[in-house]
Amino acid sequence: MTELYNSMQPMSIISIADLGCSSGPNTLFVAAELVKLVGELCRGSDHMPEFEILLNDLQGNDFNSIFRSLLPRFQEELRPGGFGHCFVYGVPGSFYGRLFAAKSLHFVHSSYSLMWLSKVPEGLEMNKENIYMSSTSPKSVLNAYYEQFKRDFWEFLKCRSQEIVGGGKMVLTFLGRKSEDASSKECCYIWELLALALKEMLSQGLIEEEKLLSFNIPQYTPSPSEVKAEVKNEGSFSIKRLEASEITWTACGNINMDSSTNVAKCMRAVAEPLLVQHFGPLLVLDQLFDKYRTILSDRMSKEETKFVNVTVSMTRLAD
Amino acid sequence: MTELYNSMQPMSIISIADLGCSSGPNTLFVAAELVKLVGELCRGSDHMPEFEILLNDLQGNDFNSIFRSLLPRFQEELRPGGFGHCFVYGVPGSFYGRLFAAKSLHFVHSSYSLMWLSKVPEGLEMNKENIYMSSTSPKSVLNAYYEQFKRDFWEFLKCRSQEIVGGGKMVLTFLGRKSEDASSKECCYIWELLALALKEMLSQGLIEEEKLLSFNIPQYTPSPSEVKAEVKNEGSFSIKRLEASEITWTACGNINMDSSTNVAKCMRAVAEPLLVQHFGPLLVLDQLFDKYRTILSDRMSKEETKFVNVTVSMTRLAD
Repeated sequence: MTELYNSMQPMSIISIADLGCSSGPNTLFVAAELVKLVGELCRGSDHMPEFEILLNDLQGNDFNSIFRSLLPRFQEELRPGGFGHCFVYGVPGSFYGRLFAAKSLHFVHSSYSLMWLSKVPEGLEMNKENIYMSSTSPKSVLNAYYEQFKRDFWEFLKCRSQEIVGGGKMVLTFLGRKSEDASSKECCYIWELLALALKEMLSQGLIEEEKLLSFNIPQYTPSPSEVKAEVKNEGSFSIKRLEASEITWTACGNINMDSSTNVAKCMRAVAEPLLVQHFGPLLVLDQLFDKYRTILSDRMSKEETKFVNVTVSMTRLAD
Repeated sequence: MTELYNSMQPMSIISIADLGCSSGPNTLFVAAELVKLVGELCRGSDHMPEFEILLNDLQGNDFNSIFRSLLPRFQEELRPGGFGHCFVYGVPGSFYGRLFAAKSLHFVHSSYSLMWLSKVPEGLEMNKENIYMSSTSPKSVLNAYYEQFKRDFWEFLKCRSQEIVGGGKMVLTFLGRKSEDASSKECCYIWELLALALKEMLSQGLIEEEKLLSFNIPQYTPSPSEVKAEVKNEGSFSIKRLEASEITWTACGNINMDSSTNVAKCMRAVAEPLLVQHFGPLLVLDQLFDKYRTILSDRMSKEETKFVNVTVSMTRLAD
């Protein structure tokens, strides 16, 4: 942001987009930090820019909750600093299509959203009782996932390349992997254990086999080299930094809860809408996530389970 | 819009704001008409602009409902026309403060919102059992209302003058009056009849006297000359057109319902939030609006009751 600001000043308006903003306590966190940072850079000068904060998520996101409870707190937090005017807009829609007018953005940020694909890939019939890529998935399944990732990420980059001004920046953080093996444990294990819980449900007659066989998670956890290849392929951005870092699941969540309960709760929040949509209202989620927690607890006592963050920052090249 | 478009082309982005958009079936009506109109003007040329549609209302407005049900219909309606990209944003906040970045708007529209003041004026203690300006209101009350209107409308114009580009247009429609008498029947009668219903409630011990004496509606229905004076006073806009037209209440609402029921329903939708906030949950609204409907029915059978629309269109002068 400092580099962006220095390269572009004097800017009268700075437009910042947060893609996949959700509607929780962190929704306006990055925006607030950026406004404060630029405010510090401008302190003592005559020039204080105005900010447009563009909060994007799917049309079903709870924008009312952002506007009614998060926004007043954000405005309260920034008030004493004497920062520039800060205008907050809600922008509904998928980031796999155009969301903003051409050349209207200076900084784009997205946190833990881009691993979600635009849809479940086609051609996963052979994935059987797996619900994501797994060590037992055939090559055709891994390919179908990878092809969907490439199409989606290319589309994402193409749309943003139209919206971001030359020299503008984008910082993306998402779940990924370090290994070049797409079915590597670091990204797939957590879903394999949920598949185990679903198989238990099946064996007890609590879900239908046909439903389980057709359930797959619309996610892809790319490696740094896959990200790099697609950025190069699309051609509008240059990568400034690309990092993958491991985080242990035990470091997550509420410290007053044991790790397996924490992870089960976290994964339930993520997977519940997909499960309900696919299996229908008869699926007893409490039962499923009880089984999942038990499986997690057993595995986590024997080995350290980790996930991988990928963060990439890039600059929009001039046309 | 045609004039705006001709004076500014080639424009690559056209930003349209709707202030006080609410969340009903008409919310995106004006935006859709404007996009179609510009689309027609551009037909056959190489140049199709992109649109930013900025929908504003207070933070409590139901933006979720706009995004989830109205927006898909709007997108469906425009799809076959081959119009330019159309980006819809929700913008929460009061239009008596800044809402948009400097010089970022080309066209501003507001329909039936600007008669609402930013707050109930101070100094209405002598308004007794009136709830709005009335023929029995003392001069000090009429003055207090007028002063609040002038402050609010000046602030509104000042904010918009910062946000609208030179040559940009603004079209405002609101409830007003033709007469120079601020307590004229054409704007105040409908509230006087609601005050009568509230007095009946008081006489039956259904509301407290102190509550009725302190209740006043935060609205002002200006005359064309008052609007003109304030636009001149603020100094950033030139008026292109200013009209006041009378509409009979009997022309309103559902044709399958009698007029008094229609008007009572309409006024309940407008006044309910204010009444509940002031009188608290013990006020029985069904009782109040039954009485109101009976009073309306009686008066409407004897005389034609009208209200007045004021519409003003103006152009932002160059700095």
